[in-house]
Amino acid sequence: MGIMALVVQKYGGTSVGSVERILAVAEKVHATKSSGLDVVVVVSAMSGETNRLLALANEIDKDPSLREQDVLLSTGEQVTIALLAMALEKRGCAAVSLTGPQAGILTDEIHGKARIQEIDSDKIRTHLKHGKVVIVAGFQGMTQSGHITTLGRGGSDTTAVALAAALQADECQIYTDVDGVYTTDPRVVDTASRLETITFEEMLEMSSLGSKVLQIRSVEFAGKYRVPLRVLSSFKEGPGTLIKLDDDETEGESMEQPVISGIAFNRDEAKLTLRGVPDIPGAAHKILGPIGDANILVDMIVQNIGADQTTDFTFTVNRAEFDKTKAILHEIAEELGAAEVVGDTKIVKVSIVGVGMRSHAAVASEMFKALADDGINIQMISTSEIKISVVIDERYLELAVRSLHDHFQLDKR
Amino acid sequence: MGIMALVVQKYGGTSVGSVERILAVAEKVHATKSSGLDVVVVVSAMSGETNRLLALANEIDKDPSLREQDVLLSTGEQVTIALLAMALEKRGCAAVSLTGPQAGILTDEIHGKARIQEIDSDKIRTHLKHGKVVIVAGFQGMTQSGHITTLGRGGSDTTAVALAAALQADECQIYTDVDGVYTTDPRVVDTASRLETITFEEMLEMSSLGSKVLQIRSVEFAGKYRVPLRVLSSFKEGPGTLIKLDDDETEGESMEQPVISGIAFNRDEAKLTLRGVPDIPGAAHKILGPIGDANILVDMIVQNIGADQTTDFTFTVNRAEFDKTKAILHEIAEELGAAEVVGDTKIVKVSIVGVGMRSHAAVASEMFKALADDGINIQMISTSEIKISVVIDERYLELAVRSLHDHFQLDKR
Repeated sequence: MGIMALVVQKYGGTSVGSVERILAVAEKVHATKSSGLDVVVVVSAMSGETNRLLALANEIDKDPSLREQDVLLSTGEQVTIALLAMALEKRGCAAVSLTGPQAGILTDEIHGKARIQEIDSDKIRTHLKHGKVVIVAGFQGMTQSGHITTLGRGGSDTTAVALAAALQADECQIYTDVDGVYTTDPRVVDTASRLETITFEEMLEMSSLGSKVLQIRSVEFAGKYRVPLRVLSSFKEGPGTLIKLDDDETEGESMEQPVISGIAFNRDEAKLTLRGVPDIPGAAHKILGPIGDANILVDMIVQNIGADQTTDFTFTVNRAEFDKTKAILHEIAEELGAAEVVGDTKIVKVSIVGVGMRSHAAVASEMFKALADDGINIQMISTSEIKISVVIDERYLELAVRSLHDHFQLDKR
Repeated sequence: MGIMALVVQKYGGTSVGSVERILAVAEKVHATKSSGLDVVVVVSAMSGETNRLLALANEIDKDPSLREQDVLLSTGEQVTIALLAMALEKRGCAAVSLTGPQAGILTDEIHGKARIQEIDSDKIRTHLKHGKVVIVAGFQGMTQSGHITTLGRGGSDTTAVALAAALQADECQIYTDVDGVYTTDPRVVDTASRLETITFEEMLEMSSLGSKVLQIRSVEFAGKYRVPLRVLSSFKEGPGTLIKLDDDETEGESMEQPVISGIAFNRDEAKLTLRGVPDIPGAAHKILGPIGDANILVDMIVQNIGADQTTDFTFTVNRAEFDKTKAILHEIAEELGAAEVVGDTKIVKVSIVGVGMRSHAAVASEMFKALADDGINIQMISTSEIKISVVIDERYLELAVRSLHDHFQLDKR
């Protein structure tokens, strides 16, 4: 990519979890700046801070006003930007902190889950021109009418990528507590190996499936705005993993592309089934409409028509929204004349991901066979061009992931 | 004052020091709102929070960037406004929180000690019109170019009064941990009694002399903009003390006005003397100019001409600025050819305050006699129309205050 002129670096909660860590981040940032690059830094709240604030809110109201929760939580990152700016200035590195609103990050009005709509980057550019490192509070923005919003937990990655896009940065570096993207979680499979590169599509599937390295929205953003993204560790040196555009690959690289890049899993889902739904047109919409209206994200969806002209409709949601979803489903069941609502929170989703899958048709059956050989029952299946996901009993998670990691020889990478 | 339409209530750090206290404040605010009044609430950071944040900053830099310190400290009040808004909404009382910048509080650019220049109260008025209690973060504002500023510690009182003035509120109620203004500090004199009313001038002298009930700038503001101010307790019921305009008094009340309203004292001062200053025109300016330029506030000033055509120049500053002031004085001494710089931090200022003093000439000599009778040596004297201050050795503070309280029969009020 030639000479880099501007990098956006993002440091998460553990990377800025103490004054010592903040001083270490200041050293890294200063070194980057001293190498001749312009630097914009995005930081999260110090680890534990967001939970501390949420606990205060919950002492007052288990279900507090989301507008006020945003006012509350946005203080977490504001503390970090000020401390990091102080640490840089102390080193003699000119720096200035900006809250999300000050940085011109404009969002929609959905408190707690706001989306960035526009970035007015004039202020940041002016500070960069004056030779300053600009430190921006992640995770937060402002509506057109001046209300503080948050992008949802972990949204600092999205802030970093959005800023990198708006400023046409040469690279967006996400510093985290892992040194790259792995073939799967090393805590589950000890032979898991770091990927040098991964495509945006693969990363997207890995993120959405619960590999917690990056927020999915940040990867979407990065892909959409063609921002080169690199995941690396704030605790040890190393090149990390570069997330690259699919069309960056030369033919040669593509040839070497393995079939499967990684195994992802998600322990945070729960399964809900509406049994005995009359098989009439529009039933699916009648079920999912109210769920969507309640801002609940639905992941996998499976529908089978039974022999008796009724159908079973099954889907998964985030486990935290299980009770809320179940309550809504009961209302829908009554309306539709469905037989019953059943649910299960003791499930996990396991997926294999790889762009190489496109040209290898037999991957799905290989996966199912590997699971069957270990006696693991598959409850739901969902496939896309570069991923196959299954829902299984949560007790079999580790067994399934290790078995698939072995089977697709991911330790050999 | 007839029917009150709008009150501004201010709750300090101890009043919102825990979730329980915030819930209690919400109850008070809700009761006021339910009585038919519009309410704007100004809050401080939860007690201890500002010190916690300062400690973090000081771990990084003993003398951090004041701009960044403002970004850091302003989070303290932001947490409180969000929690109080949640507590009110939980009670079914519509509320909205606003940070200083959101509330349209515009200040000058002096970080850490900013002064309010203008309040754009449109947003607050709109929320009030919609029937909401508006909760504003005290102590903070924004410069014209969008930097976050703080008004200095305790500046929440100033925010409350400035808002009351801008909104033409009918009363500005300062809730604190004392139930009013006392003839002196009850911890020093146990027969100290609560004043029903006090004039702005007296209050101003009491505040500036270290009676910590109200910030002096808030009293100045209130006097200037003719905002009726009431000090009352957030912990127990009671009418508190009303601070009223001098010209509100009828002749009858004025007749009953005691000579002395209270005894104030200040343990936070230190004394500095420049010895052997050549007695030339402009010497005082040459001494105080650089001190003022360094934003150091000078309180008492005494100058005596000696026999040898040189003069001793003595003044007091806040004890925290003693070292800084001394360093500047050494430079000045060299420049002016002064003999030496001496200083003393072990002093206190004790003052008697009262509008009744105006028509009673003998008050000063009575005060000096009372102190002399107890063997207390007076180091400096300063007088104004309604106050007489002396500087004494700090060891005699309690003795001096009790002696004067007795002498002027303040326990009989």
